[in-house]
Amino acid sequence: MDRLIKKIKECQNPTVAGLDPKLDFIPKFIIDEAFESKGSNLDGAAQALLMFNKGLIDALYDIVPAVKPQLAYYEMYGWQGLRAFYETVQYAKQKGMYVIADGKRNDIGTTMEAYAAAHLGEIAVGQKNFAPFGSDALTVNGYLGSDGINPLLDICKKYDKSIFVLVKTSNKSSGELQDLAFANGKSVYETMGDMVESWGENLRGSYGYSTVGAVVGATYPAQQKELRECLPHTFFLVPGYGAQGGGADDVKYAFDTNGLGAIVNSSRGIMCAYKKAGCDEKDFAAAARQEALRMKADLSF
Amino acid sequence: MDRLIKKIKECQNPTVAGLDPKLDFIPKFIIDEAFESKGSNLDGAAQALLMFNKGLIDALYDIVPAVKPQLAYYEMYGWQGLRAFYETVQYAKQKGMYVIADGKRNDIGTTMEAYAAAHLGEIAVGQKNFAPFGSDALTVNGYLGSDGINPLLDICKKYDKSIFVLVKTSNKSSGELQDLAFANGKSVYETMGDMVESWGENLRGSYGYSTVGAVVGATYPAQQKELRECLPHTFFLVPGYGAQGGGADDVKYAFDTNGLGAIVNSSRGIMCAYKKAGCDEKDFAAAARQEALRMKADLSF
Repeated sequence: MDRLIKKIKECQNPTVAGLDPKLDFIPKFIIDEAFESKGSNLDGAAQALLMFNKGLIDALYDIVPAVKPQLAYYEMYGWQGLRAFYETVQYAKQKGMYVIADGKRNDIGTTMEAYAAAHLGEIAVGQKNFAPFGSDALTVNGYLGSDGINPLLDICKKYDKSIFVLVKTSNKSSGELQDLAFANGKSVYETMGDMVESWGENLRGSYGYSTVGAVVGATYPAQQKELRECLPHTFFLVPGYGAQGGGADDVKYAFDTNGLGAIVNSSRGIMCAYKKAGCDEKDFAAAARQEALRMKADLSF
Repeated sequence: MDRLIKKIKECQNPTVAGLDPKLDFIPKFIIDEAFESKGSNLDGAAQALLMFNKGLIDALYDIVPAVKPQLAYYEMYGWQGLRAFYETVQYAKQKGMYVIADGKRNDIGTTMEAYAAAHLGEIAVGQKNFAPFGSDALTVNGYLGSDGINPLLDICKKYDKSIFVLVKTSNKSSGELQDLAFANGKSVYETMGDMVESWGENLRGSYGYSTVGAVVGATYPAQQKELRECLPHTFFLVPGYGAQGGGADDVKYAFDTNGLGAIVNSSRGIMCAYKKAGCDEKDFAAAARQEALRMKADLSF
């Protein structure tokens, strides 16, 4: 997690820009150009995703420390979409950004090792090693327990990568399971939080935060405050700011007294800023930059 | 779920063959051929996966109703691996097999809609619709509650597809969270089971089972028996037979009195039968077929 925190300090900005590029979000001139060069099909759609992402990255890389491409929006355009995902990750890394692959992956044993190798590690083919997707961090779901997390810890250690485990998600129905209380009075999300803190116990970096972070939604500030206190070594990835309703007041408790401890995601807010601003779609990147600067100021506590 | 059950009845076999093709599992002659045609790289690896899968499918399609490719093993070979996943799904469907994409996907709202479209539905690009991966069913993780499941139900209804929600997984540490008991005495997995039964309430087919199935591991027969009784309309996908230690005695409680209600997965047991049998690797497909027939007989209660 040190690499991410260092980057946040450099930019003085605890923001991660979500790259969730549905075609509906992409300016028409990009789509037209992509379809013209690759066809009006999954190849063309993937090309539009990549061009949109590159435009956003170019506009953001010097002021925003990280991007969070959501794998679902690439899978939606087939393997062609996942090629665009791979190319997006490479492009963002070239520009010095930290890349969090939002995949909420989960499985056990050798299968989880496969996901870990896919997104954070390497795989041997013949005499060479390849990094299949090569992100810096991956979001994961801990429902299966340690068997699903341990394979990731080895890879994180070896390649200096991180994970973020779902603890308290930002959606309305997150409480259906996560808020239920066990006999000892602890809720599911608190119990998951404790597991996260213990998974990271021997993997703490120079800022005191471990390699094992937590996803804690902006839409539940009270739970966020409580979790910040209970999980002092756990870095938070905070979705739900902006489009989902959370504002600066809703995310302030995610931070520690040094202003560290969390990174706040905005996806549609930044990606679709040009629509909200009502500006020419050709200015989508400038509008994204402006919204990112507004958000940075908003998060200066 | 009706399409799967019909297929199981036709084959008189409640087996699903897991297609988890690590290069270590694939006969050397296939890898050599793939590397020669595509190079010793991710393209070549993906080609080896596809050739291996096609060989297995050719050997199994008339006796095994379904295949379950595990997405992690394709993601491990990058977008090239996911192209092989797509081609595997298409090939299995051409041969009449039911395809369960094992991805344990989870997210909320429009993001979950994206996963649903990716694996079970269609996506509009320009004037046409495309089925990005086109499987028949998808495994999912319900930690995020209804917001993560509802978008799938709409797609299942529209395209006659199914999902399997993780309830009690087969791994050793599954109890760390799943077995913990709430104040009302119910465990997390029982609570998740109740949610699954209710998500499927209005989506029951002609055999009494709903579109919303559950993953219930072979390695916990007592819990399986209990869940079979509590979830009468929920079809079970049962991993953990064979390599993970479960036998026929461990899975028998997953079935109802008509011998329906569950499908049992074997991955390495079938894929790597040629290694266990010690036969020539060129006979991998025949060995897989023999193991599938043995398993079919083993599961004839």
